[in-house]
Amino acid sequence: MHNKKDHITPGLFRIKAQDGRARRATLHTAHGPVETPVFMPVGTAGSVKAVAPDDLLAIGAGIILGNTYHLYLRPGDELVARHGGLHQFTAYPGPFLTDSGGFQVFSLSALRKITEEGVVFNSHLDGGRHLFTPEKVVRIQRNLNSDVMLALDECVAYGSSREYTEKSVRLTSRWALRSLDAYHAGQAEARSDNLLFAVTQGGFFTDLRKASVEDLCCRDFAGFAIGGLSVGEPKDEMYAMLDFTAALLPRDKPRYLMGVGTPLDIVTGISLGIDMFDCVLPTRNARNGTLYTSRGKINIKRREYADDDRPLDEACNCYTCRGFSRAYLRHLFVSGELLALRLNSIHNLAYFIDLTRRARASIENNTFDRFKAEIESVFQVTTDIRIEK
Amino acid sequence: MHNKKDHITPGLFRIKAQDGRARRATLHTAHGPVETPVFMPVGTAGSVKAVAPDDLLAIGAGIILGNTYHLYLRPGDELVARHGGLHQFTAYPGPFLTDSGGFQVFSLSALRKITEEGVVFNSHLDGGRHLFTPEKVVRIQRNLNSDVMLALDECVAYGSSREYTEKSVRLTSRWALRSLDAYHAGQAEARSDNLLFAVTQGGFFTDLRKASVEDLCCRDFAGFAIGGLSVGEPKDEMYAMLDFTAALLPRDKPRYLMGVGTPLDIVTGISLGIDMFDCVLPTRNARNGTLYTSRGKINIKRREYADDDRPLDEACNCYTCRGFSRAYLRHLFVSGELLALRLNSIHNLAYFIDLTRRARASIENNTFDRFKAEIESVFQVTTDIRIEK
Repeated sequence: MHNKKDHITPGLFRIKAQDGRARRATLHTAHGPVETPVFMPVGTAGSVKAVAPDDLLAIGAGIILGNTYHLYLRPGDELVARHGGLHQFTAYPGPFLTDSGGFQVFSLSALRKITEEGVVFNSHLDGGRHLFTPEKVVRIQRNLNSDVMLALDECVAYGSSREYTEKSVRLTSRWALRSLDAYHAGQAEARSDNLLFAVTQGGFFTDLRKASVEDLCCRDFAGFAIGGLSVGEPKDEMYAMLDFTAALLPRDKPRYLMGVGTPLDIVTGISLGIDMFDCVLPTRNARNGTLYTSRGKINIKRREYADDDRPLDEACNCYTCRGFSRAYLRHLFVSGELLALRLNSIHNLAYFIDLTRRARASIENNTFDRFKAEIESVFQVTTDIRIEK
Repeated sequence: MHNKKDHITPGLFRIKAQDGRARRATLHTAHGPVETPVFMPVGTAGSVKAVAPDDLLAIGAGIILGNTYHLYLRPGDELVARHGGLHQFTAYPGPFLTDSGGFQVFSLSALRKITEEGVVFNSHLDGGRHLFTPEKVVRIQRNLNSDVMLALDECVAYGSSREYTEKSVRLTSRWALRSLDAYHAGQAEARSDNLLFAVTQGGFFTDLRKASVEDLCCRDFAGFAIGGLSVGEPKDEMYAMLDFTAALLPRDKPRYLMGVGTPLDIVTGISLGIDMFDCVLPTRNARNGTLYTSRGKINIKRREYADDDRPLDEACNCYTCRGFSRAYLRHLFVSGELLALRLNSIHNLAYFIDLTRRARASIENNTFDRFKAEIESVFQVTTDIRIEK
């Protein structure tokens, strides 16, 4: 959380402890320090779905992700700028990271055309035609006053050919360098000290992953993201490529695995040296009634919870678990009450935030392996478990 | 709010001030005093839609309404009883009033058959057949541990004949007396000191309204509701019948106008001596983007708010108005964000709660007429007003 007294130059990344490849660090931003490894709740359109800023503060969430693509289209980055940037507009005082928009252009937009200049796409809202260039995407994120901005990249689909992926990697590298030039050119008028990360790509080809990192890692980006994973590939392929790529990234910069993932993915990522994660999983699953607990995943819809007066997770201290029974949570969910969506979302976010908090403590204590084994034993059973009375 | 130190025998109704026919009083319940005139947020299925108990406490809401019909069908009054009654089940510590179920049986149920014994109806959820008798409805509300219970009544439709209404009034009276017998018989085993109100009916016939009151007002009900108004009649007819009926009710018992209404209806009701109100209007309108402010009703969807950085209502101190701009609230609403529904609901509830708080203060100061005139001047314009810059 932002604390004026402790203000340190944004971009400074201090590794405090290491346990195997797992790292415990602090990334300083213009809106306060980010303790890593960190899970970033996703606030696509400037709101983490179903929860409010006070909920996020109560959970102990730190940095929030906003989607550049969505915010550019609605309400518009210039409107957000007129309202003081994302922090003031959304009334969340902590740091924001915004993605490059690349992934959304490729996943949400019906039509798109990539050229050297950038990518032309049609809005998923009204079909309107838009152009993203590396320079424009930096400008949009400056308007949002994002603490951590990402350079425009192309996210190639799983199964793309080597030839296509190679061309794409080089284009992403050229776009990243143009982003960096635009970043430096805009520093003087910036509202605050926004940081710029590059996104490494390379699909599922190790030599292209290596080429991407080599193109980018010697430049003065504040951190490096790993893009193009968790796009439909088998889990072991993702883990192998993550293992390979994470090891190539510079030790002294934060590493961000985009759009990942489950608690198992997160502890695996941490074990391979990843510092930052984001995913819609906790909030999306909350809205479907799937809840993460210290005993595994449960579906609150199930009849077995109808008369269960215990809290959702006795190991959890969130507002939901402190105040409400499983019986009431089930009743709210099956009755279609909006409160169910908020209470479920608060709990799932608290679970993910607490997961990374515990990971940080275990790295400090050199007990990360044991912590990882605990999470693995809880989540190896991928179907809903029955929590016995 | 509940305060053990100030615990006074439930049912005690103390009038503290009077200004014309408007009364400022306190109704003591097993879960704390209710300061009247009071607006009761509607928590149909045990949740005031889109808000949580902490929101209600922050707004300063006192007594909450639960719908007996809904809670009986889902999750079931016996389940609620096993979980400590409504207060413990829903985690709201303040008083609850539950209605008789009569209105819902007549408005939601596809099939119903009224006999001397009670009313047979089909659930709107699964079509299942159920019977409500006066005795059963008291038992259900005891299971809910309602602080203020209502006797089963028949709510006749607007336009019902004199003949039908007369028969119905007499049946409602007989049901009320059976309810009172069941109430007394059950007092010994009650979890707490639940109060029982009778519902007066009589359609739009003054002599039948009078007959209904005369049948019931000499009995030891803790209070009297006026039912069968706001069922589709013109406003002046409602006000005339309310004026007539309120004047007949005993001075020393609380008077509750069921299912009403707008800010104008509420100040009119207060001016005629009504103490208690409930309505879905603030929460339902909030979910449609219609918001009540000190300057009138506004629709937050309108483009004119897109770039408006002022709070929704500068005269309001709710979480929504303290923290968020109209521009952000409009963005959330047009983007379909769930947070919009909570923030809008918090504000509208705060408006209605504050309306009755101000009414109470004005009665104490003998300035109720001026307060009523202020509210009338704000809401005479029934279309959306434009709040100028």
